[in-house]
Amino acid sequence: MKESVTFSKDLGVRTLTTLLFLPLFLVLVLVSRITMVGIFLVIAFLAFWEYLGISLGRREPFLLLLAGGVLAWIYIAPLFSESVRISGWYVSALCLLGWALQDTTKCLERVSFFLFGVFYCFVLPFFWVRTGLEFSSKTLLFFASLVWINDVSAYLIGVRWGYRKILPSISPGKSWEGFIGGIGSTVLGSVILGQFFGFPFAWSCACGCSIPPLAFLGDIFESALKRRSGLKDSGTILPGHGGILDRFDAFFAVGPLVYLLASLGRG
Amino acid sequence: MKESVTFSKDLGVRTLTTLLFLPLFLVLVLVSRITMVGIFLVIAFLAFWEYLGISLGRREPFLLLLAGGVLAWIYIAPLFSESVRISGWYVSALCLLGWALQDTTKCLERVSFFLFGVFYCFVLPFFWVRTGLEFSSKTLLFFASLVWINDVSAYLIGVRWGYRKILPSISPGKSWEGFIGGIGSTVLGSVILGQFFGFPFAWSCACGCSIPPLAFLGDIFESALKRRSGLKDSGTILPGHGGILDRFDAFFAVGPLVYLLASLGRG
Repeated sequence: MKESVTFSKDLGVRTLTTLLFLPLFLVLVLVSRITMVGIFLVIAFLAFWEYLGISLGRREPFLLLLAGGVLAWIYIAPLFSESVRISGWYVSALCLLGWALQDTTKCLERVSFFLFGVFYCFVLPFFWVRTGLEFSSKTLLFFASLVWINDVSAYLIGVRWGYRKILPSISPGKSWEGFIGGIGSTVLGSVILGQFFGFPFAWSCACGCSIPPLAFLGDIFESALKRRSGLKDSGTILPGHGGILDRFDAFFAVGPLVYLLASLGRG
Repeated sequence: MKESVTFSKDLGVRTLTTLLFLPLFLVLVLVSRITMVGIFLVIAFLAFWEYLGISLGRREPFLLLLAGGVLAWIYIAPLFSESVRISGWYVSALCLLGWALQDTTKCLERVSFFLFGVFYCFVLPFFWVRTGLEFSSKTLLFFASLVWINDVSAYLIGVRWGYRKILPSISPGKSWEGFIGGIGSTVLGSVILGQFFGFPFAWSCACGCSIPPLAFLGDIFESALKRRSGLKDSGTILPGHGGILDRFDAFFAVGPLVYLLASLGRG
């Protein structure tokens, strides 16, 4: 009895947070290219901040600054010759190394966790931004909807009918019933939304089938990261959901796939 | 007294190993492009094998295979469309993730150490190969000589006159005297070799000044890696020297710098 009460309360807070943040997200993506890039940058930096906590156990502003510098350099470096580019990378490497060597026993963790974090929290979501910029913000929202439909339906179906656990040691909430139900709902959702947006039927089906498995893996990976550091949530920024990483783990993992599907759709 | 005996014996074995391997290296670099790429590939794979031992404490053949696959993909991916490229990266990511999730408590270490290892042991030496291919094998040997002159002279001067330790907690052998002496010898060596090869004087000086500090940092970083795992040597493949990583740490770190200097020299 108590369990279902907690569940309903959780679901209530969750829904409320969603009703607050989802429209904000949609508006920012649709209103202009700058706000679209902006909201993804905010998400990426918040995710990176949480990632620092669950990976290194230290959230140092210096690392945010360094990540910002590296990003800015990735963006502007193509304007320069290769000599300037290499010099810029050495400067970044020296900053990173100087910080890493302050704790000799953790130097490899510091260097490689930082670099992986930049990939995980910036490079992966960057493919969402590319999809929005090179195709359209509607295409972006189509894919975002699929990720959310899968998330929500796999969760609800798993809570109601989920018995066969997939990986109880990493993510005890995940069941085969939820996983299969998620795929079914996502295919259904993608076909309906695809009709609405005027996308080809076969392509919509392909999107609905291919996103859930990778979303699942992204989810499992983030759960493993948290389990590694003994945390339940990556943060507390989204009441009822946990942190940004908890909400966007699947989102990040499917980034390149989304871009790939969008490219195939145009071809 | 005993110390100097050990020192002489060490130096003897070291010299012998050098006399065996150095000519082999020189011949392979000079004889053809294929043997040049080949010797660097062998060095990179051996270094990666040692790196797996000092980073993860596990040398699994699967990881060598995966690294080989990733390398091959980096090499052939540009022949394909972006869709195929992204798909290939997903396949690699799934292989890596599948292996990493076998140990939930170490999943982040497994993923990020592996990726950093690929960068450290393959991407960095790749710049040496690029220098050899895009400029000439003589340019490559000029730079290799500078790294070795710096290595040997900093070591010998440090052993003889080194009192002021730079970072005793990480690398107790390194002294300011050796460091400065290494720079001096390298500048001298680069000027003499530069005359011999017909390179501009100012450029040779710049090479001699800029290589030692980065070589030093590469050395320090590798020492920190070993200290982290409590090892003295990264391997035992080169008697008197330790492992491949012990001998090529500075070599790897200056890779992009060497390519940059070579590009500037041509410009």
